[in-house]
Amino acid sequence: MDRGALGPLLTTVLDALAAGVTRRGGPIPAVSPEDLAAEIARAFAPGADPSPELDSGRSTSGSTGPGFSRDPGRDPGRGSGLDSGGGDPDALRRLTEILAYGSADPADPYCAAHLHCPPLPVAVAADLAVSALNPSMDSWDQAPAATALETLLIDELAGLVGYPPGAAGVLTSGGTESNLMGLMLARDHVLGRATGRRVEVTGLPGDGPRPRIFASSVAHFSVQRAAALLGLGEEAVVPVAVGDDLRMDPGALAAELAASAGRGELPMAVVATAGTTDTGAIDPLPECARLAAAYGAWLHVDAAYGGGALLSDRLAPLLDGVNLADSVSLDWHKLGWQPVAAGIFLVRQAETYASLARRAAYLNPADDEDAGYGSLLGLSLRTTRRADAVKIAVTLRTLGRRGLGELVNACHDLALAGAAAVRAHPRLELHTEPVLTAFLFRYLPTDPAAGPAGPAEIDRVNAALRRRLLREGRAVVGRTELPGDGPGRVRLKLTLLNPTTTPEQIERLLETVVEAGQAEEAR
Amino acid sequence: MDRGALGPLLTTVLDALAAGVTRRGGPIPAVSPEDLAAEIARAFAPGADPSPELDSGRSTSGSTGPGFSRDPGRDPGRGSGLDSGGGDPDALRRLTEILAYGSADPADPYCAAHLHCPPLPVAVAADLAVSALNPSMDSWDQAPAATALETLLIDELAGLVGYPPGAAGVLTSGGTESNLMGLMLARDHVLGRATGRRVEVTGLPGDGPRPRIFASSVAHFSVQRAAALLGLGEEAVVPVAVGDDLRMDPGALAAELAASAGRGELPMAVVATAGTTDTGAIDPLPECARLAAAYGAWLHVDAAYGGGALLSDRLAPLLDGVNLADSVSLDWHKLGWQPVAAGIFLVRQAETYASLARRAAYLNPADDEDAGYGSLLGLSLRTTRRADAVKIAVTLRTLGRRGLGELVNACHDLALAGAAAVRAHPRLELHTEPVLTAFLFRYLPTDPAAGPAGPAEIDRVNAALRRRLLREGRAVVGRTELPGDGPGRVRLKLTLLNPTTTPEQIERLLETVVEAGQAEEAR
Repeated sequence: MDRGALGPLLTTVLDALAAGVTRRGGPIPAVSPEDLAAEIARAFAPGADPSPELDSGRSTSGSTGPGFSRDPGRDPGRGSGLDSGGGDPDALRRLTEILAYGSADPADPYCAAHLHCPPLPVAVAADLAVSALNPSMDSWDQAPAATALETLLIDELAGLVGYPPGAAGVLTSGGTESNLMGLMLARDHVLGRATGRRVEVTGLPGDGPRPRIFASSVAHFSVQRAAALLGLGEEAVVPVAVGDDLRMDPGALAAELAASAGRGELPMAVVATAGTTDTGAIDPLPECARLAAAYGAWLHVDAAYGGGALLSDRLAPLLDGVNLADSVSLDWHKLGWQPVAAGIFLVRQAETYASLARRAAYLNPADDEDAGYGSLLGLSLRTTRRADAVKIAVTLRTLGRRGLGELVNACHDLALAGAAAVRAHPRLELHTEPVLTAFLFRYLPTDPAAGPAGPAEIDRVNAALRRRLLREGRAVVGRTELPGDGPGRVRLKLTLLNPTTTPEQIERLLETVVEAGQAEEAR
Repeated sequence: MDRGALGPLLTTVLDALAAGVTRRGGPIPAVSPEDLAAEIARAFAPGADPSPELDSGRSTSGSTGPGFSRDPGRDPGRGSGLDSGGGDPDALRRLTEILAYGSADPADPYCAAHLHCPPLPVAVAADLAVSALNPSMDSWDQAPAATALETLLIDELAGLVGYPPGAAGVLTSGGTESNLMGLMLARDHVLGRATGRRVEVTGLPGDGPRPRIFASSVAHFSVQRAAALLGLGEEAVVPVAVGDDLRMDPGALAAELAASAGRGELPMAVVATAGTTDTGAIDPLPECARLAAAYGAWLHVDAAYGGGALLSDRLAPLLDGVNLADSVSLDWHKLGWQPVAAGIFLVRQAETYASLARRAAYLNPADDEDAGYGSLLGLSLRTTRRADAVKIAVTLRTLGRRGLGELVNACHDLALAGAAAVRAHPRLELHTEPVLTAFLFRYLPTDPAAGPAGPAEIDRVNAALRRRLLREGRAVVGRTELPGDGPGRVRLKLTLLNPTTTPEQIERLLETVVEAGQAEEAR
């Protein structure tokens, strides 16, 4: 590979990004999903001519080619695709530009729906090094430096969680994979202990007590998904009641555990959420730890969102007790400002990883490991694995914990200001005060003088105003539903992950929501 | 986020990559794992001063900061890390340079161990756009354009496999995840049909016929790993005998299926490998399809490596019958020249995805989907998911299938030339002719005049010469073991994925292997 070809191609990308962002002119393109998909289909078609909007004469990639020296892409032949097979030197510019145009841009202050952060440029730059060098974490001889760096980073993050020496962990694709790993180890460990069998070898036993997982009713759906994947079934997950603050009620957890034990079931795991996706609610971690220990259950803490609080002196006490967990999920592509993916899975005791250890003759033969060529293969569910540790390590050192903590605090301040603005607005209703950097609210459609709208109508208007904001390219706000049944549960959501957004911008965003609500109400 | 900050940081990265590659001066650094880890620990230490070797005065990041405008990283305070928390503006340069120095570089002709490709610069550049825009594929409003593009790409790749309309699929982290998905759908589909239960909801039944997976004895270890994860247990995998060519013996598959059915078991899935990791062997796909259908089993084809043959008119016939599979794994970070990750999972019939469908109020509410805001959430095991489709789409259009096919052919030619050179060398022994772009061989340590070395000694010398080449920074060759028991099974491996390498370079690489073997033999 000729890495010298990379520089001009990066210039093409930066120019195309700028052109696409300029054309978008807001947080999301003002276009229907159908029209956007049709435009992308035209841009992706083999031999596509640049559309009039996209053709701005900035193609530079044609002169450099894709970069292998014996590069057939230099052939200027067009009319390509899988059938005819030729090359198209403008594809990088054209597809980058339409990707930038057609993105929901978390760097825009009015894009505030999801746990979808604007990545730090320093992290984006570090990720480029990873793409270019292409280490793979499944063997030492595909990633000598990255293997050492990931090990150091995991040690440091284990310290951040408060784990004593002897912890271990791995980078993951995100909280969903981390939660799966926690529950897999819980299954193999707790069920293995109860049955005296290595269930990863023999399979789930056909008899014996049924394994159960306890998680709050507002825990992430990946808990059910993991139970399904692991062969336990979604029904293995016992939903534990939450209080008005949407935190797990420890009394309810105690009662569910006792009832389950009374039915002769096996309390396999407790999943405590540290930062629910919708409201940032943090379950009572010390009580969860005490109850899990009392029943011999594994405690997994899903801190994919709330783990960011550990970076902030102000917010870190919210996670007191996380160090008692057997395993933890963190996501630095949320409060950590990394490009996707930057998931982290940690276990308090490295030896609990036993059921995942694998010997593959072509990756980690014993004599190579004895000679110091250790691999991380046995720590991950994946084989080939990108070196996502690098961008996190660079970010951590470039900003320091203090610098990252200031970003967390800025987003927390913004959420408090946004919630105050909702409370002060007569047409908006706040759900609860923000815990971290997100809050739920809704538009109240009816002028009080005309009598209140019914709950189904309030739901309809809020859902429709959100789609209107998307369609008009004005804002990306979240939409979710409160737990329970029946109408009246739809809520809008702001998730504030952009530390450069100002309170004034949030106020204008809320006014935009109200305008869209009025427009939908009038329909 | 201030994307304008990105340009100077990219310059820092390119300069640091060049400096690290220059310092390395070969395919891998000439250093022991311990010394490399110690040097990386120094570079990663909070407040690390650049080491003398690394300090070359090229720091440019200090003047631009990591990029948020209210950026605490601009604070020049050092002595940082998690404890003291300050920032270090040189971290990007320092860690990128040591990463480049400490990499096994697949762009070097003497780095030829694994399915670890040199990425095309055009793909690396496209991946930069993804890092910067940070779409996440779990909802439309985090990835409007990328959602449409991935859908188009999957359609085109399904066509490449020969699937009729109605196929579906998703980007994955690699063959391991793709194999897991295939076996998960097989479990939910075949076991569900046999038991009349939705096993993803109820869990694996405690009674009834035991599910079995049939895969060749040299199939990838991720098949066992998937069985373990899915609750079936590794023992659910029935190893099917292979012939001398390491292809699954269809007679043996027929016999194993018949024996299993005779034991009252449930033949759940057949996994056919199209391109084993070590030798590129391709199982007899039409026979596997016929036998799987006869027993009502799901056919999954692991074409993570061999799927690249579909790009080459010359090699594509090797995969005849892949279109009969219920699901397929492809990996474009192997024969596809993408940065990790570029896995692809395809199913022939979209409706077989049923057990993975999920409704999450905050991601894909029904009324949003009805209004055209469709998400890909139900196609993936992940929630947050990087837009890996973009780099593949850009590559496919930039080079075309024909251009990519020429790269595949170049690597195939190189493997044929390398195998011929092994055959011609008196001290080297070829295992079998290459099928794709890899072959096994070994060094024969003893001069024939002095009598043959025993098999254990041949193993020792080959394993040791490989580590010597690593330690001396001269070459990265693979090492694996043939199936079976007892000594004499260690083999070296060349996996040729660099189309710019020349046959002369491979001959020199083989001479280097012989020199290292002689040095180990003399010890």
